[in-house]
Amino acid sequence: MQVTSEQLLDDGVVERHFTLGEIPGILWTPASASAPVPPILLSPPPIGLSRAYPRLVGRARSAVAQGFAAATIELPGYGDRPRLPGAEQAGADLRRAMAAGEPVTDEIIDALVLPLVDRAVPEWQAVLDALLDLPGIGGPVGYSGGVISIGTRLAAVEPRLSAAVLFAGSFVPRVTFEEARRVTIPLHVLLQWDDAGNDRQASLDLFDAFGSEEKTLSANLGGHTGVPQFAGEEAERFFARHLS
Amino acid sequence: MQVTSEQLLDDGVVERHFTLGEIPGILWTPASASAPVPPILLSPPPIGLSRAYPRLVGRARSAVAQGFAAATIELPGYGDRPRLPGAEQAGADLRRAMAAGEPVTDEIIDALVLPLVDRAVPEWQAVLDALLDLPGIGGPVGYSGGVISIGTRLAAVEPRLSAAVLFAGSFVPRVTFEEARRVTIPLHVLLQWDDAGNDRQASLDLFDAFGSEEKTLSANLGGHTGVPQFAGEEAERFFARHLS
Repeated sequence: MQVTSEQLLDDGVVERHFTLGEIPGILWTPASASAPVPPILLSPPPIGLSRAYPRLVGRARSAVAQGFAAATIELPGYGDRPRLPGAEQAGADLRRAMAAGEPVTDEIIDALVLPLVDRAVPEWQAVLDALLDLPGIGGPVGYSGGVISIGTRLAAVEPRLSAAVLFAGSFVPRVTFEEARRVTIPLHVLLQWDDAGNDRQASLDLFDAFGSEEKTLSANLGGHTGVPQFAGEEAERFFARHLS
Repeated sequence: MQVTSEQLLDDGVVERHFTLGEIPGILWTPASASAPVPPILLSPPPIGLSRAYPRLVGRARSAVAQGFAAATIELPGYGDRPRLPGAEQAGADLRRAMAAGEPVTDEIIDALVLPLVDRAVPEWQAVLDALLDLPGIGGPVGYSGGVISIGTRLAAVEPRLSAAVLFAGSFVPRVTFEEARRVTIPLHVLLQWDDAGNDRQASLDLFDAFGSEEKTLSANLGGHTGVPQFAGEEAERFFARHLS
């Protein structure tokens, strides 16, 4: 993990931009802490890190205020990273189906989401390796983020993850339902009830599929980006319960 | 409102048993308060007040600790109150349908639930009249409780209600869906995902039907009586946001 810049934000939060191999990312930590702080992996929405930065830094500041560190990375295929093979075709197929009022087939969803999941999950594991090597970071690990299939697979395969906040707002490939059954860590799932681009029934089915003994679905009125502040605070309390 | 007994609980909560006409009830208030406290109507589950007392008093203590009063009543047809006409037949029809593995028809649900709703809603309004006449009680009014059709109709017809926590765990008559569309106050709806006796899809449809601009569905793993402590605390924070 190569730190490329470092600044102290006004509320005692240190923001470090880094690269891990080809992957750019950002790490937020408390300016001072008496003991190692548990990390939260802040997986961004699939819109590129620079566009997602304002909401990510808000969540990171809250995480640090609660006694955690937070880290995010540019997802494969976004920002300045090379586009994923097939992504352009899959995106075109999706737009064509939606414009024609046709159902979005499983084949389109698989082509759109799975190449991203296949690459992002091992990248998050590499980031986690690097984070846990840092002297000020340690303890149980949280995951919070968009693209629910990434979080689902990471929770299924990565034993160091202790708790996850998932955002049900993207297409769900069939394999994600199978992977969900293997997830056993506590989950807090956010669903925006009026998210026009989201398949609400698929989100409810996925919530049902998770194998976790503690899982909460917090569904709120509003569109994709309209998660109410109180619902964000609930998600923070979920981490406080499970990572502190 | 005739107070029949009064005792000071160990945490500074005064518990008064009362009757309002034929209706027995319990009122919990702070032993001392510098200003009138907003009341929360704690509608009991349909199991009789004496059986429901342990969980009601727990919620009442929390409400008082937050700066509210709480009141509950014996539902019509429960405890020592006369059985509702038709209730025995409706209960027998329900048990027969369930034992035979047949669907519970809308007719059975209507016969089972609507006579209770028809009587309980004006009773709650009378209780509210009496509560707001008391010198130490005033401000916005909350409603919290079981039998979601009672809370739905009360929220639709009673303009003094400011916010409601509803428990989605009972049969929903068709008319309740229509009444739900007329509800506009903020709602926090609790749903137990594995409530074997509850129709989950009907609960989701009812949540969808509510006309409120702020509504949250908090669905948690577990059976009918297994609402996790953290979910109860979320419901308390909902009242703190809307009644304080």
